[in-house]
Amino acid sequence: MSTDENVCAEAVAPAVAVEAAAAAAPQKPTGAKKAPKPKAVELKNAKGTRDFGPFEMRIREKVFQIITDTYKRHGAVQIDTPVFELKSLLLGQYGEDSKLIYDLADQGGEILALRYDLTVPFARYLAMNRNIKNIKRFQIAKVYRRDNPQIQRGRLREFYQCDFDIAGDFNAPMVPDAEVLSIADEALRKLELGPFTIKVNHRKLLTAALGMAGVPEDLHHTACSSIDKLDKQSKAEVQKELEQKGVTAEAVQKFYLMVDTVTQESSMQVALDKLRDILASTTGVDAEAAAAWTAPLEELVLLEKYLQALGVTSVKFELSLARGLDYYTGLIFEAVLEGALVGSIAGGGRYDNLVGKFSPRNNIPCVGFSLGVERIFSILEAKVKKNAEAELAATQVYVISNSKESITDRMAISSKLWAAGINTEFSHRANPKLLDQFGHCEKNGIPLAVIYGDAEKENKVIKIRNVSTRVETTVPFEDLVSELTKAIQSLEL
Amino acid sequence: MSTDENVCAEAVAPAVAVEAAAAAAPQKPTGAKKAPKPKAVELKNAKGTRDFGPFEMRIREKVFQIITDTYKRHGAVQIDTPVFELKSLLLGQYGEDSKLIYDLADQGGEILALRYDLTVPFARYLAMNRNIKNIKRFQIAKVYRRDNPQIQRGRLREFYQCDFDIAGDFNAPMVPDAEVLSIADEALRKLELGPFTIKVNHRKLLTAALGMAGVPEDLHHTACSSIDKLDKQSKAEVQKELEQKGVTAEAVQKFYLMVDTVTQESSMQVALDKLRDILASTTGVDAEAAAAWTAPLEELVLLEKYLQALGVTSVKFELSLARGLDYYTGLIFEAVLEGALVGSIAGGGRYDNLVGKFSPRNNIPCVGFSLGVERIFSILEAKVKKNAEAELAATQVYVISNSKESITDRMAISSKLWAAGINTEFSHRANPKLLDQFGHCEKNGIPLAVIYGDAEKENKVIKIRNVSTRVETTVPFEDLVSELTKAIQSLEL
Repeated sequence: MSTDENVCAEAVAPAVAVEAAAAAAPQKPTGAKKAPKPKAVELKNAKGTRDFGPFEMRIREKVFQIITDTYKRHGAVQIDTPVFELKSLLLGQYGEDSKLIYDLADQGGEILALRYDLTVPFARYLAMNRNIKNIKRFQIAKVYRRDNPQIQRGRLREFYQCDFDIAGDFNAPMVPDAEVLSIADEALRKLELGPFTIKVNHRKLLTAALGMAGVPEDLHHTACSSIDKLDKQSKAEVQKELEQKGVTAEAVQKFYLMVDTVTQESSMQVALDKLRDILASTTGVDAEAAAAWTAPLEELVLLEKYLQALGVTSVKFELSLARGLDYYTGLIFEAVLEGALVGSIAGGGRYDNLVGKFSPRNNIPCVGFSLGVERIFSILEAKVKKNAEAELAATQVYVISNSKESITDRMAISSKLWAAGINTEFSHRANPKLLDQFGHCEKNGIPLAVIYGDAEKENKVIKIRNVSTRVETTVPFEDLVSELTKAIQSLEL
Repeated sequence: MSTDENVCAEAVAPAVAVEAAAAAAPQKPTGAKKAPKPKAVELKNAKGTRDFGPFEMRIREKVFQIITDTYKRHGAVQIDTPVFELKSLLLGQYGEDSKLIYDLADQGGEILALRYDLTVPFARYLAMNRNIKNIKRFQIAKVYRRDNPQIQRGRLREFYQCDFDIAGDFNAPMVPDAEVLSIADEALRKLELGPFTIKVNHRKLLTAALGMAGVPEDLHHTACSSIDKLDKQSKAEVQKELEQKGVTAEAVQKFYLMVDTVTQESSMQVALDKLRDILASTTGVDAEAAAAWTAPLEELVLLEKYLQALGVTSVKFELSLARGLDYYTGLIFEAVLEGALVGSIAGGGRYDNLVGKFSPRNNIPCVGFSLGVERIFSILEAKVKKNAEAELAATQVYVISNSKESITDRMAISSKLWAAGINTEFSHRANPKLLDQFGHCEKNGIPLAVIYGDAEKENKVIKIRNVSTRVETTVPFEDLVSELTKAIQSLEL
């Protein structure tokens, strides 16, 4: 229902008048032109989108609540940005992925497109609000990708992201980064999805390691996209791909050695120590190249120290983690569920130059992550599918009577209960049968019924029935709210 | 931050590789082509859209919570539909307003458009889910209108609607209609916007009254859009417009008489009685025309009886209420704040044929309404603007120390507090001054600080400081969580 129809009523009038005239046509004796038969409307969702029914929404609600609570526990505030942005803002931020951006039709105004993520709109927001020097913000909203949808694998063209980011220059390396990782860890634990690992890497360390292994600089990006597949493909397959791209077998082997050395270590600290040893012992490398890996590696060492203080134990260093490298400048990370095939369920990193791209004189460094909630929804939906249907509506009380004349009584009683904050329903049928009403309660998991029939009315009492035990208590009519409140409390114990 | 970058890394690679090569170019001795200077990005929101900062989002959150609680109190479940639909589905539902629909660019797939309201997607949802025979559902989501935006008046191109609808054939006239009105009334009361009136009318009664006044049937629709302006324009102005449209002065006067007679009555029952008298005494009308007003008028009489049982006193009958008539078939209504110039803040009605339009063999009658929350936000933002900024983050505790080395202590303490469910922050600065940290608490309304310096560390204690009273308590370090929990509870009393 729109609240704005009246504003537009006049605009509608001519078309509607034609419709009305057409409807009136049969009454005219002759010559009336028959209104054209309306075309059948195709009944489907746009490709790659889906509806979410009450059951799915109940799960979403719970997931969003857990995530929101976690973000707020760390002092985050919420912002919201529009679903569409100027297309010029989005272009150039996602590399070739720009082809996945949904354009709006040119409708004689601005050239617009649907947002591809929440990070670029956040950076625009910061660039436009220069009074904000630092902020912890979260945003839970839908994003759009004109990608090849695979609905059963949770890959849609419209999907939610739950972003948390810390913006600001704090002059304290890795402190916000460590808190971001601890928040990702906390949110995933609270969601109770099962054991997970957060794989971390450093963009500059990866680049330096590739350089030390002998991968030419102009091949780093394309090499990264191959290396990123090591969690799904065999080393031989990835090596083949790398060689096709022009990386020598020797360089690949050198890099694999580094990856293997750190991968065998469950302790991030030991892994970093070993990597330091390998890099330090690499021969034929100039001082400049050696310096390139020192700074990022020491950042990860500092991160490890902070994660220990924060009690985060799910983080593991993984040199082959690449992610999309477009706007990341430091830490990168990705969370995966152990033993699950759903891919990453969270990912993020540091992006220090994105705000500056929009606002060159007022750059703000940022670090953050996004929870891939669609995958999380799928996992949780599958978990609770069976027994959750019954409690969908969360109705606490059903007001029952069995005569048509009593409908105003049912309404008056319900009205009392709503005013007392009790979730209440009554049958909308003209003449509902008593048994049907009891059946409705049982089917929908409504725990209490109040019964008000002719006998109760005469004696100024009302019955409260526990639907599952079928025990009924008769109480004075005027005590209804207090007695029901007690009954609800005793149910919750 | 996207979780899907790894999927797309390969697609990005070529473009990024070019970028990397360009960046590397200065190292090449000669002939390196300079990368083209990036164009300045225009920093603005798409026309008719705006960002919502932390303050606005806090208000939205509260408003949505009140509305959600009210809808759920009546047993409603939530659904969600996509932001875009097949364009063919939306066309033909809004009359000439279809010109306000945002089209997506033709990108070689389906022809899509952004949703214009939540009612048509809900009807599509029902048509596609034939197992649903009745449902009380709500949906809170953004809709899109390529209208002329007036941001200061709360008219945007992207805005939220909060819809509640009851679908189902209950064989009990006006029962769902009465509950829908009572829910609208309850939500508006809970939002504490000030006194309001819900104006109701019946589409068929309005049509019948126009007929009885002598307005030809083919002019009803266009006449309605003029009549609907009677709350903003003078009678003379509206009469002029009606006469230009071909309605006779006599018909206008006859209709005005009806409107005046009922408008003077604050009691809906008396108003309906008087209208019945006028209509019954109208001469020169055949039995068929007389029958046309009897049924809808008796429906409103029944509605009035039910509203009394439900304790709803804000409803007033208004014969000149027209609204957009495209899909409404019975009750129509609109809520206005008394003495405010913001227009209607809620509106709705019965639409019995919309689902059947999409699913002819499986029609479901519906009645519902939408809360115009953007206007409600504007009102509430203005109300609380002054004193709400301080409590934005809802942070309860700030962990303070004043030496660089203590940052891991701050982290370890914060981590303990997060685990205990306490909203906690600490400074991300490398070497924050004690006074700056106290100042941060005061500025941001953080009520409690815990202080852990060298002395506290040595004595295995920690200080809890009440930020506003500046009273400090020293407690054993191991009692921190329990003592803080007590302190927070005492603050909330």
